[in-house]
Amino acid sequence: MSELPAPRLHLDDLFVGQTFHSGEYLLDEVSLKDFAREFDPQPFHLDHEAALPTLFGGLAASGWHTAAISMRLMVDSVPIAGGMIGAGVEVSWPQPTRPGDRLRLTSSIIEISPSRSKPDRGWIKLESLTFNHKDELLQRLVSRILVFRRST
Amino acid sequence: MSELPAPRLHLDDLFVGQTFHSGEYLLDEVSLKDFAREFDPQPFHLDHEAALPTLFGGLAASGWHTAAISMRLMVDSVPIAGGMIGAGVEVSWPQPTRPGDRLRLTSSIIEISPSRSKPDRGWIKLESLTFNHKDELLQRLVSRILVFRRST
Repeated sequence: MSELPAPRLHLDDLFVGQTFHSGEYLLDEVSLKDFAREFDPQPFHLDHEAALPTLFGGLAASGWHTAAISMRLMVDSVPIAGGMIGAGVEVSWPQPTRPGDRLRLTSSIIEISPSRSKPDRGWIKLESLTFNHKDELLQRLVSRILVFRRST
Repeated sequence: MSELPAPRLHLDDLFVGQTFHSGEYLLDEVSLKDFAREFDPQPFHLDHEAALPTLFGGLAASGWHTAAISMRLMVDSVPIAGGMIGAGVEVSWPQPTRPGDRLRLTSSIIEISPSRSKPDRGWIKLESLTFNHKDELLQRLVSRILVFRRST
C-alpha cells in the first residue's frame, strides 16, 4: 500500500512507443496444477513424470494460465481510464512457463486508431511480452483495446 | 462414466471440415467473480452495480475466463493423440459471457499443413466457436495445434 494510485490514462494521453512495466507474479506448482485441473487437464500440465516424454520435457503451465496471469499483470500496470476492454487478441507461447517462474510483463503501445464513427473513443494495439525471472520470453500478446477520450 | 473413451486422432485421421462438439459448462456467478478476483480484477467483472454504467451494462466474465472454459471444453471434445499443444492463437469476444450462461464449443479443422522439415508431424488450424445456451456467439478462437502422424 506504499504506492500512490496510478493516473488513469485517456486516449489523449497515449502515444505509440509508450511502455508500461509490471511487478512480478510467482507461479508455484500447486497453483499451476490447480488451474490445469480445472481448465486444461492434460498430463503435461498435471504431472512431472507424465510430462517428461512429451515435447515439454517436464511439467509446464497451461498457456491459458500464462495468459490469465499476464492479464493480472496488465490490469496492475496499464492504467487505462475506465478499465481494459479488449475486443480481440493474438497470443503465442514461444516457451513453456514452469513452476517457480516469476512472471513480469512489459506492454508497449504499437498502434493508435481513433474511431471514425464515435469521436469520444479509439482503439489501441498493445503488445505485451511476458518474461520469467531468467528473462526468457514466455508469451507474446497483442491486444486491441478500447480507450475513451477525456470528456471536455 | 457411461461414455467409451474417445479414439485418439493422429494427423492421418484428420480432414478439413472435420467438426467436434463439446458438452456444456455452466458458469455460475461465484466462479465468475473468483476468476476475476485472481486474474482480471476490474469492476465490471466483480460487481453487478459497478458494471451497469460500463459498456458491458452488467456483470460480465473476463474474456480470459471464457477462453479458459473453452480450453476445458476443447480438451474434453477434440481427441488429438498426445494432447493439444498450441503454438499460437487468435481470440475475439463478440459478446460478453454472463453469470448463468451454459457454454458449449464447436471446433472445426480449417487447415492442415504437414511439416516440411519433420515428416512425423504437422500443424492444424482449428476454429473453435463458444456459444451460450441462447446460441449467442461468445468467443471465436483459432488455434494452431501440433499433431503427430501415427507411427508406422
